[in-house]
Amino acid sequence: MADQDAQTSLDAGPPMIPSLRWDEPPEGPVLVLLDQTRLPGEEVELVCTDVPALVQAIQTLAVRGAPLLGVGGGYGVALAAVRGYDVDEAAALLEGARPTAVNLGYGVRRVAQVYRAAVRNGADAEAGAAAALAAARDLHREDAGASAEMALRGLELLDELLPGGGHRILTHCNTGALVSAGEGTAFAVALAAHRAGRLRRLWVDETRPLLQGARLTAYEAARNGMAYTLLTDNAAGSLFAAGEVDAVLIGADRIAADGSVANKVGSYPLAVLAKYHHVPFVVVAPTTTIDLSTPDGASIEVEQRAGGEVMEFGGVPVAPLGTQAYNPAFDVTPPELVTAVVTEAGAVSPVTADALTALCARSRQVTIS
Amino acid sequence: MADQDAQTSLDAGPPMIPSLRWDEPPEGPVLVLLDQTRLPGEEVELVCTDVPALVQAIQTLAVRGAPLLGVGGGYGVALAAVRGYDVDEAAALLEGARPTAVNLGYGVRRVAQVYRAAVRNGADAEAGAAAALAAARDLHREDAGASAEMALRGLELLDELLPGGGHRILTHCNTGALVSAGEGTAFAVALAAHRAGRLRRLWVDETRPLLQGARLTAYEAARNGMAYTLLTDNAAGSLFAAGEVDAVLIGADRIAADGSVANKVGSYPLAVLAKYHHVPFVVVAPTTTIDLSTPDGASIEVEQRAGGEVMEFGGVPVAPLGTQAYNPAFDVTPPELVTAVVTEAGAVSPVTADALTALCARSRQVTIS
Repeated sequence: MADQDAQTSLDAGPPMIPSLRWDEPPEGPVLVLLDQTRLPGEEVELVCTDVPALVQAIQTLAVRGAPLLGVGGGYGVALAAVRGYDVDEAAALLEGARPTAVNLGYGVRRVAQVYRAAVRNGADAEAGAAAALAAARDLHREDAGASAEMALRGLELLDELLPGGGHRILTHCNTGALVSAGEGTAFAVALAAHRAGRLRRLWVDETRPLLQGARLTAYEAARNGMAYTLLTDNAAGSLFAAGEVDAVLIGADRIAADGSVANKVGSYPLAVLAKYHHVPFVVVAPTTTIDLSTPDGASIEVEQRAGGEVMEFGGVPVAPLGTQAYNPAFDVTPPELVTAVVTEAGAVSPVTADALTALCARSRQVTIS
Repeated sequence: MADQDAQTSLDAGPPMIPSLRWDEPPEGPVLVLLDQTRLPGEEVELVCTDVPALVQAIQTLAVRGAPLLGVGGGYGVALAAVRGYDVDEAAALLEGARPTAVNLGYGVRRVAQVYRAAVRNGADAEAGAAAALAAARDLHREDAGASAEMALRGLELLDELLPGGGHRILTHCNTGALVSAGEGTAFAVALAAHRAGRLRRLWVDETRPLLQGARLTAYEAARNGMAYTLLTDNAAGSLFAAGEVDAVLIGADRIAADGSVANKVGSYPLAVLAKYHHVPFVVVAPTTTIDLSTPDGASIEVEQRAGGEVMEFGGVPVAPLGTQAYNPAFDVTPPELVTAVVTEAGAVSPVTADALTALCARSRQVTIS
């Protein structure tokens, strides 16, 4: 069950409330989400007391963004365990909530494995639940740390690709603190450039159909005092043609073993524009996004979302009744269009299967003991 | 002054009411426009009794589309003459209403010249006004004829480029009966393919920020019983990547002497995608759109529209207050990305300055005597 909780006015100016937090009020443990569908107008928290509520929050995009979905999925398993629900059933529900997001499955499986191992080793329900919660908290902490690492490595790469600073960066969708337990992925790099005085402008694609750029990235950019300008997705072409884009920074929902990148629909056209204009196209994502079991772009399942997202706007129909819509959530960019993949464990450029495999081997030695 | 007149329900199913018509009710002559800002929800006519009302209708996009703006501009001059207003002042107001649309200026100047010539040759106010109205009606008739010619020549070209039929055509913005006194430009070609049984699918870009694709092209496609699918502009990349687009057909607001094409923002990214995927990119426009006095793409003035179009939707803010927006109405596609320009006087491919000059010379021998 989900309730709506404290509401903060945007004008009040306190620091952004966390996109996700575990809380233990007297009524019992809950997972509290910042309802991203209500931004930028209102900051409303959504309180999930069980996994079906969390699954609904994931499917309605109240909580979204690959890394945060991993953390949320992990906490979801812990929530089921702590509240005494069937952990296997909860894990299956959560894993199926959004098919393209590999991090969600990763977070769910990781915490579920810890829980099962504890139970196998004789833990009672309470001890098993405590182990699951500890595993979710580890994931949370690691994700925040990964953000900081990606920001550092991404800024290094930017400075290498574009000596002299004054970067004009184009980004798509939302990849900041709202998608992560830290400061995000691609947005975290732009924010690091801003803090270092080397960001001249952040070009923010509005990102139809759900306008995560307009609603969320513009909100985060404004909150952080960055110089940013909003544009419709199809206006990016004019910026490239005018030489106003120095680099494209995007996140990823899944990176296949060959380096194909599934990300928010609209990323691929930007990659083609970037190639045509000789502008670097950089993907910033944690290593958990790299899925070596998906061999290539063609093997990535792309979620088709409801046509209503295209045919209505804020509940108001914009197309004739009966119109059919094509509404893929993601598109796939092949590795030859990606200048670099930046992860918390290092950057890969050029993007090849061998380089990604080596990176994952290095990274997983550290994170999975 | 503009009034709102008869309202027709979309479900009623009568033929589409004309996008523009001259009428002479007892209260005096008027120009009646189908208010395109109200589509597809309602078919409402807007009655213009003077030029300021028409200018407002042009600026709010109640009437739009390059060829129709030419016809509307011509009738606007006639309206001023018939109602006894200052024709030079009216012409100046109309010409300045939208800077990028060359046809508007063409229609205004053509009718104003006829009026001035008549007055110079001794016509009284009434005879001058009659001459202006006759000139506007000629323009109207020519434009309808040009649509039919473009449809024929465009379909010939399609069949040549894509033998075998079953065309899957992607289009952007709105280029049908709503932009023309006939069946339009690019849309008229798709409609001709549909009538010939050779259209498999019309892919309709929604066309942010004003959604002319969702609101108007989908409406015209539905009215004509065509197989069409609506998509967000940024989803076109996935269609190209999947091999689902056989050709792109768009209109134009201005074609420079070198063949650079100014059209609705979002056309240029489609041209780059088409090039990358070896898909023909065809521009369909009357010869009045070709402006030999504009030497190249860099010389085309691109109208910047209000940021509110990006930051609000139906009056509801979608971005934080104080956000700055980049909102060009058009972009410019260089001739090397254009497979062909189809006009009522013939098609040009490849698109070169010499070929366009020759085409205009041929065409203007006929239309300006």
